[in-house]
Amino acid sequence: MDLTHLLLTLILILAGAKIFGELANRVGQPPVLGELVAGIVLGVSCLKIVNPDAEVIVFLADVGVIILLFEIGLATDPRELWGAGGQSLAVALVGLALPFAGGYFLTLAFGYKTHVAVFVGAALAATGVAVVARVLGDLGALKTKEGTVILGAGVIDDIIGLIILAVVRGLATGGEVSAATLARVTALSAGFFVAALVLGGVFARRLVWLIEKTRVRGALIVAAVGFALLWAFGASVVGTAPFVGAFAAGLALGRTRKYDAVAADLKPVADIFTPIFFVKIGAGVILYYLNPFEAAYRPVLFLAGLLFGIAMLGKVAAGYAAWGRGVNRLAVGVGMSPRGVVGLIFVDAGRRAGIVTDDLFGALLLVIAATTFVGVPLMKLAFGRRPGDKIPPPSSTIIGTSAPAKHNAA
Amino acid sequence: MDLTHLLLTLILILAGAKIFGELANRVGQPPVLGELVAGIVLGVSCLKIVNPDAEVIVFLADVGVIILLFEIGLATDPRELWGAGGQSLAVALVGLALPFAGGYFLTLAFGYKTHVAVFVGAALAATGVAVVARVLGDLGALKTKEGTVILGAGVIDDIIGLIILAVVRGLATGGEVSAATLARVTALSAGFFVAALVLGGVFARRLVWLIEKTRVRGALIVAAVGFALLWAFGASVVGTAPFVGAFAAGLALGRTRKYDAVAADLKPVADIFTPIFFVKIGAGVILYYLNPFEAAYRPVLFLAGLLFGIAMLGKVAAGYAAWGRGVNRLAVGVGMSPRGVVGLIFVDAGRRAGIVTDDLFGALLLVIAATTFVGVPLMKLAFGRRPGDKIPPPSSTIIGTSAPAKHNAA
Repeated sequence: MDLTHLLLTLILILAGAKIFGELANRVGQPPVLGELVAGIVLGVSCLKIVNPDAEVIVFLADVGVIILLFEIGLATDPRELWGAGGQSLAVALVGLALPFAGGYFLTLAFGYKTHVAVFVGAALAATGVAVVARVLGDLGALKTKEGTVILGAGVIDDIIGLIILAVVRGLATGGEVSAATLARVTALSAGFFVAALVLGGVFARRLVWLIEKTRVRGALIVAAVGFALLWAFGASVVGTAPFVGAFAAGLALGRTRKYDAVAADLKPVADIFTPIFFVKIGAGVILYYLNPFEAAYRPVLFLAGLLFGIAMLGKVAAGYAAWGRGVNRLAVGVGMSPRGVVGLIFVDAGRRAGIVTDDLFGALLLVIAATTFVGVPLMKLAFGRRPGDKIPPPSSTIIGTSAPAKHNAA
Repeated sequence: MDLTHLLLTLILILAGAKIFGELANRVGQPPVLGELVAGIVLGVSCLKIVNPDAEVIVFLADVGVIILLFEIGLATDPRELWGAGGQSLAVALVGLALPFAGGYFLTLAFGYKTHVAVFVGAALAATGVAVVARVLGDLGALKTKEGTVILGAGVIDDIIGLIILAVVRGLATGGEVSAATLARVTALSAGFFVAALVLGGVFARRLVWLIEKTRVRGALIVAAVGFALLWAFGASVVGTAPFVGAFAAGLALGRTRKYDAVAADLKPVADIFTPIFFVKIGAGVILYYLNPFEAAYRPVLFLAGLLFGIAMLGKVAAGYAAWGRGVNRLAVGVGMSPRGVVGLIFVDAGRRAGIVTDDLFGALLLVIAATTFVGVPLMKLAFGRRPGDKIPPPSSTIIGTSAPAKHNAA
């Protein structure tokens, strides 16, 4: 592809992402859903403008998800995990286990192979913490008991979800799922994550020291992004998902005194790169497979319907793992139900590894999107607000603790 | 190339750019020279890590130069041109004409074809206004008579330089240089530039109006970068250099009330993208052609030496086009002599069009770098400072009017 062609593609990706993102926001949905729709419109199913397998687009999207996870890592405060304590942990674990198990056995029952079932289960597991945090902020419920439990559980959920993803990706590369492989890949992924965190902490402090000595323009943002890319590269070399490394890099740099400056500089960079990732995911959806009049594809759609049920019920049930007086357990469960970035990353990784077939890919995207479309209004109901309540504009809903306002949204 | 490979390449480009940029800064040279050296080290001549013709690298570098010129356009105040008035215009025109004519005829005399000679002449013409502004700031000479004339002339110089570039590129595509072609391409380029400015002004105001209505995160920076890419795309479609469009977009957006917000958000984005361009240019240099023991390449080196002389003398002579009492004309001329971004863009465009051969490419890069290596210390002398004077750290040398502090440096 020549420059002119690529330029136009990039322009349309960025414009589409913002236009559809804005439309999504206007109807009370997270902008990331709009970006997925933009991808579907621009992608293989409709306009065929964005080829999700073109080298430049794939690379920009990969950098986008690396920067996105780096940003989420930066904004994640490990102390938050301890704040809500045991309740969050219980809710997180039950909320991961139930949808995973349900998705896994259901997919097996539909005749898919073991490693496909693992992928599907894993894709349903993780809560979309950023969209949840955003909605809680909109409802003024961030400081409630339920809000605290949900946020803590969401963060734990994200981290465990990323480790599961690393494991699943390792399995995907290996091909077979034996107990020994599972143990080896889990050890490797968890080991890499811990090592990346520890080394990252040391490295981040040295890097900050070094940056403070430099005079050239842009040393801070280039060093930060370079750090994220380097850790992503390390993860990639070890055979783990690159963005797990970037997340660890973000956690490490988030605890240094340069946190604020890095976060501020990273924002516009993330604004440019991350929509490319979501539009690329949408661009890979082949709508044809979702045609219910096509008998051959009905089982997948039927499976998707059941998976959606499991995805919602699993999280709602997890809410009842919270204890203590006066906790609205239904609100906690409903609040955990919207899925997001991590789930999307799962299905994208599955598609690229050739494990998630095109029909299943479209169906899983539908399921993830549906949990958010349905989960967000349900949250408003469960917290005792009418779903029609006007969402205040973003400027008034800044969420102190949790995550860059939008993109890790959904 | 797979993700792992590309990630490592990008990491090394960013790290190399900052390390060598910092080293250059420490020895009193503009960081962009360090970035070129980083490119030479990483490129085809030494480590062969960066392939300057790989699709992803080429695209990132193209986006880098588009964003760079957009940023320069944003920071360029058209009123500045009127400030220093006629003197600046006279200095600019003489300073463009002499090196161009000298380079053109000298290259012809060495047996090269007409369109090669046009490229060489044009590459020597434009002053590197940003590095000059930076050095003037370091010397505390921004508000002197000489400083005002130089800055005004530099900005005029940049704009005319970009139009010349558009013309030359048009000729490169056409192949032949007849008076009719020249007239057609000049009209097309100048016409595009004027149209882009006028339409850009209207479009920019609508865009700002639209952005103020949006709620999603990142609308401002995405819209600004999208605008720059769109104008670059337009230039590309018309057959003009893409970054001429980006420069016009920057000028247009710079006159809206969102200027400050866009400039702030654009900075980290430019910090990531623009070094890729300069490292890529360096990566294309084949050092072998600069070997003076190789008899076949001596004429090129000899030509380079003469071109350097013409480049310096042409600008120094232009200083004497300034009039008025008590103006240090030598300082004005010396202050116009460092070449920079526009010259580098010329030689890069020439190489890619297949007009500037690899040996000439290396020689021209040497000439451009030498004008800065020599010009910067000469400026300190001409303004009555010793060349050893310590340059204060960047934080104390912010240049109000002119240009992002570093990259349009040199």
